[in-house]
Amino acid sequence: MKVKNILGERFKERAFDIESQNLMTRGGYMKQVGNGIYSLFTPAKRIQNKIEAILREEMDAIDGQEVLFPVVMPATLWQSSGRYDSIGSELLRFKDRSGADMVLGMTHEEAAVQMAMNVAGTYQKYPFMIYQIQTKFRDEPRARGGLIRVREFTMKDAYSFHTSQEDLDRYYERAYRAYERIYARAGVPEVIAVKSDSGMMGGKVSHEYMLLTDIGEDTIVTCPECGFRANMEACDNIIENVSDPELMPLEEVFTGDAKTIDEVASLLGITNDKTCKAIVYQRNEDDSYVLVFCRGDLELNETKLTNYLKSKIHPAVDIENANLAAGNIGPVGLDTKATVLYDRSLVGCTNLVCGANKAEYHIKGFTPSRDLPGNTQFVDLTKAVAGGICPKCGKRSLSISRGIEVGNIFQLGTRYTEAMGMTYDTENGERKNPIMGCYGIGVGRLIASVCEAHHDDYGPLWPITIAPWQVEICALRANDENVKAAADKLYKELEDAGVEVLYDDRSVSAGFMFSDADLLGAPIRVVISPKAIARGCFELNARDKSFGGDVAIADAKEAVIAKIRELTEAVNAKVPERM
Amino acid sequence: MKVKNILGERFKERAFDIESQNLMTRGGYMKQVGNGIYSLFTPAKRIQNKIEAILREEMDAIDGQEVLFPVVMPATLWQSSGRYDSIGSELLRFKDRSGADMVLGMTHEEAAVQMAMNVAGTYQKYPFMIYQIQTKFRDEPRARGGLIRVREFTMKDAYSFHTSQEDLDRYYERAYRAYERIYARAGVPEVIAVKSDSGMMGGKVSHEYMLLTDIGEDTIVTCPECGFRANMEACDNIIENVSDPELMPLEEVFTGDAKTIDEVASLLGITNDKTCKAIVYQRNEDDSYVLVFCRGDLELNETKLTNYLKSKIHPAVDIENANLAAGNIGPVGLDTKATVLYDRSLVGCTNLVCGANKAEYHIKGFTPSRDLPGNTQFVDLTKAVAGGICPKCGKRSLSISRGIEVGNIFQLGTRYTEAMGMTYDTENGERKNPIMGCYGIGVGRLIASVCEAHHDDYGPLWPITIAPWQVEICALRANDENVKAAADKLYKELEDAGVEVLYDDRSVSAGFMFSDADLLGAPIRVVISPKAIARGCFELNARDKSFGGDVAIADAKEAVIAKIRELTEAVNAKVPERM
Repeated sequence: MKVKNILGERFKERAFDIESQNLMTRGGYMKQVGNGIYSLFTPAKRIQNKIEAILREEMDAIDGQEVLFPVVMPATLWQSSGRYDSIGSELLRFKDRSGADMVLGMTHEEAAVQMAMNVAGTYQKYPFMIYQIQTKFRDEPRARGGLIRVREFTMKDAYSFHTSQEDLDRYYERAYRAYERIYARAGVPEVIAVKSDSGMMGGKVSHEYMLLTDIGEDTIVTCPECGFRANMEACDNIIENVSDPELMPLEEVFTGDAKTIDEVASLLGITNDKTCKAIVYQRNEDDSYVLVFCRGDLELNETKLTNYLKSKIHPAVDIENANLAAGNIGPVGLDTKATVLYDRSLVGCTNLVCGANKAEYHIKGFTPSRDLPGNTQFVDLTKAVAGGICPKCGKRSLSISRGIEVGNIFQLGTRYTEAMGMTYDTENGERKNPIMGCYGIGVGRLIASVCEAHHDDYGPLWPITIAPWQVEICALRANDENVKAAADKLYKELEDAGVEVLYDDRSVSAGFMFSDADLLGAPIRVVISPKAIARGCFELNARDKSFGGDVAIADAKEAVIAKIRELTEAVNAKVPERM
Repeated sequence: MKVKNILGERFKERAFDIESQNLMTRGGYMKQVGNGIYSLFTPAKRIQNKIEAILREEMDAIDGQEVLFPVVMPATLWQSSGRYDSIGSELLRFKDRSGADMVLGMTHEEAAVQMAMNVAGTYQKYPFMIYQIQTKFRDEPRARGGLIRVREFTMKDAYSFHTSQEDLDRYYERAYRAYERIYARAGVPEVIAVKSDSGMMGGKVSHEYMLLTDIGEDTIVTCPECGFRANMEACDNIIENVSDPELMPLEEVFTGDAKTIDEVASLLGITNDKTCKAIVYQRNEDDSYVLVFCRGDLELNETKLTNYLKSKIHPAVDIENANLAAGNIGPVGLDTKATVLYDRSLVGCTNLVCGANKAEYHIKGFTPSRDLPGNTQFVDLTKAVAGGICPKCGKRSLSISRGIEVGNIFQLGTRYTEAMGMTYDTENGERKNPIMGCYGIGVGRLIASVCEAHHDDYGPLWPITIAPWQVEICALRANDENVKAAADKLYKELEDAGVEVLYDDRSVSAGFMFSDADLLGAPIRVVISPKAIARGCFELNARDKSFGGDVAIADAKEAVIAKIRELTEAVNAKVPERM
């Protein structure tokens, strides 16, 4: 394809802070149509098609059957699983012309069960996996970062059905490996699987695939010592407190306006970990109060609290109504109707400062093991911290990073088959609900993530396996007859050889042409200029500067093909074997 | 793939009247999710993927750039073209979580202009064509026939942009040819292009691609003499009346309860073509009345009337309100505020019977040229009839058929670019609106149409180019060691050779196995049985019975590959050259 024919304009001005959004906008990859809704120009669609081809190959290789579910579904289908009511306004609900309630698919568990229902009634039909690559809509309140977080997106979603947990476990391992292969084939082998929160869905095991980057929305906990990896939401927080040799008595102390942990600790000349913090939430369903106490230097992990309560929650908006002394709440002498929880970080603490449950006063000398009832339960409700204890190897080695989630795999169990009444007959004639797994990858987010991970100041550095074009021919001074003839010839030769070639034969300056080429990101570039031709050569350069130099004109075609093979092999070398 | 692993069940019971819907349901190709909304099982998705590949190749070959537009679009985009208000409830409108008005894309002219706007500002950027293959939703009031008429469907839609009508004409010819190639490659070269109604869209030229079949919803007029083809909606009705030698005077005649043309003609002993019929409509916008007179044996063409009036219309619901004598309306002595139109079929008529504008009476001897004012205009507003005069060759040769529309191409002109304010600078520095063409094919409907055109009583006869699998191996008595070994070996050999093979190794009866194979429709079948093996052979049969017989086991693989080539070449032989 010729650069002059590509619809879309490239420009220099920095448009956005997030680099992938900036470069993909400046490179003419996409255009916003509405909040979190984009059209993709040809360069982006070509990348998407290549990723889709990889997804198909890897899904087919783990015995997946490609199917297609609808974008628009009747509400009744989502009511049959209970999610029509349980999911918030990210599920877009509307009425069709006949007044029937409908939804836009944000995921397709219900559709997968509906498809498999009645056609997989005996154990011999299992296991099987169905997948689709289809448009999804999730009414995100905060679309951001270009294709990183959008409302409409193309997704590969897969659903497997099994007759035993062991069979699901085996299949899950294969899917896990297939995902590693997908990211490696897409040129981002650095994507890591982390243990993730299974939420209230009833599943036991789930993983998110994360690309570590500062712009990520997720917090990832890793242990460089043992390889432990988890999403912060799902990471156990292991705390070992050293008790003071001597226990102080409880004693009220005037603290005046000091309310936050920082203020109180500073006033009393102690460190935050010698305090006990109170955090107040309300359950979404009935606004009832939940009060959590934890060590003052730690942060509450809302996901853990939600899972523990099996209720959605929000930070309390009106603490006064709860009859609680905001800023001075403490476990001693507390009189409240709120659900009160104690974090595991309080175990072994001694001589803490906590609220006195009255304005302007705190209490010194709080020792949970002495001052709380003997049957008090301690629950893990706080976030792990950098330098904290690894839940796997026990070393004080935890490291915290930011990551973009570029996929997830999930053991769903019988959550959906049970709710929707899908059963099969076992060998013994029993009726059972099949056990499910699900496996998702957002295509657009993966594109943006690859760009985020692989770019320089001038544009994306697309891996050869997903680059919109493998090679770009830059004909400097295309109005020079020799240049034009040589460039036209190479263009034709490479196209005939099945190479994906972009050809820039515009009469523009070298700077302008290279700037566009940088933004379009073909991994290999052939520069054809009067000067080079005079010495019988073209220049053959890598977009990422990993190679560059003259190549004899007669050898150019073969040299390009060899480079494509070399770059492709380098990507494939990092792809693990199939399971 | 093994038949036993395909999700979906095949069954014998006739499920629907329309054969493609019946066979595709019985064959496990699809499952209804809601009214006009389907999930596709793997066999259908494989066909769809093959058609999509053909579409991509043919669109790329006419310089198309694949892009992707969103399914969900802000209402503002559709307001910018005026269609948000002008289109009825087939455009699904809803609000997102923020209360913003949104629509589901049923077509993407606005999105195409939005994409091209600001990035095609000078004449040098033209022409270009962008296309997508994407899910669409059209809130059809009457979904029917399985994938024939649905609400959600996958569509290839393309949009070209030009700086002159001549350039659009040239491109339109190429697209026309590309469409012929697409249908021929999909195995339905019998699809014909017919002139279609351009409606009120401002375009000049449009064609629909029709597969002629009795279950079609469209009426197609063809001329076997000269090859003329048009949708009934867009077909001129040419009438040549022979005048009576003698004109009778106007004379009232008592007709009592006789009101319909049939009743009046029968009462008076004349043929329907010697009457003048009155038809009353109302404009949708203000319910104002429109009265059309035509020759009594003809039917009104609502599309022509709509286009002439430039208003949407509906049959009058309350004629009394119009002060018209229902059943006795006539052009003589008529006193009405309705818009009155005369069809061209009245030109040259003599001595007609028409209503007398009072109950129980008609008038005899109506001769339009004598009894209507001299400046009366006659407009073509009626439907062509079988045996009628061909508008192209003038012979009385018209034939009427039913057809399914499987695609359309359309010269849009500046309808959208003008409304949305998209301009480019000409060579002379003028600002102009680009001229557009658009080109659509519904993928699911094409699949169903191919099935409708190519099936027998037992299942679809998929053309080799789009068949879900090219070959099916039927291992009769797969529990026989020799059969299993031979079938396994051929399966592996063919798969290794890149052949798409379905393999049935279930322990089921031959009848059951063949019945499933008929429904799955692989064009080539290899039957491996103990008997055939005993004579050193497999059986190699065509699904459509065009060949069949023994092949030596050692030659089987090559024979299958040769048959695939042969069948593919037979399809390709009917594909016209590219333009």
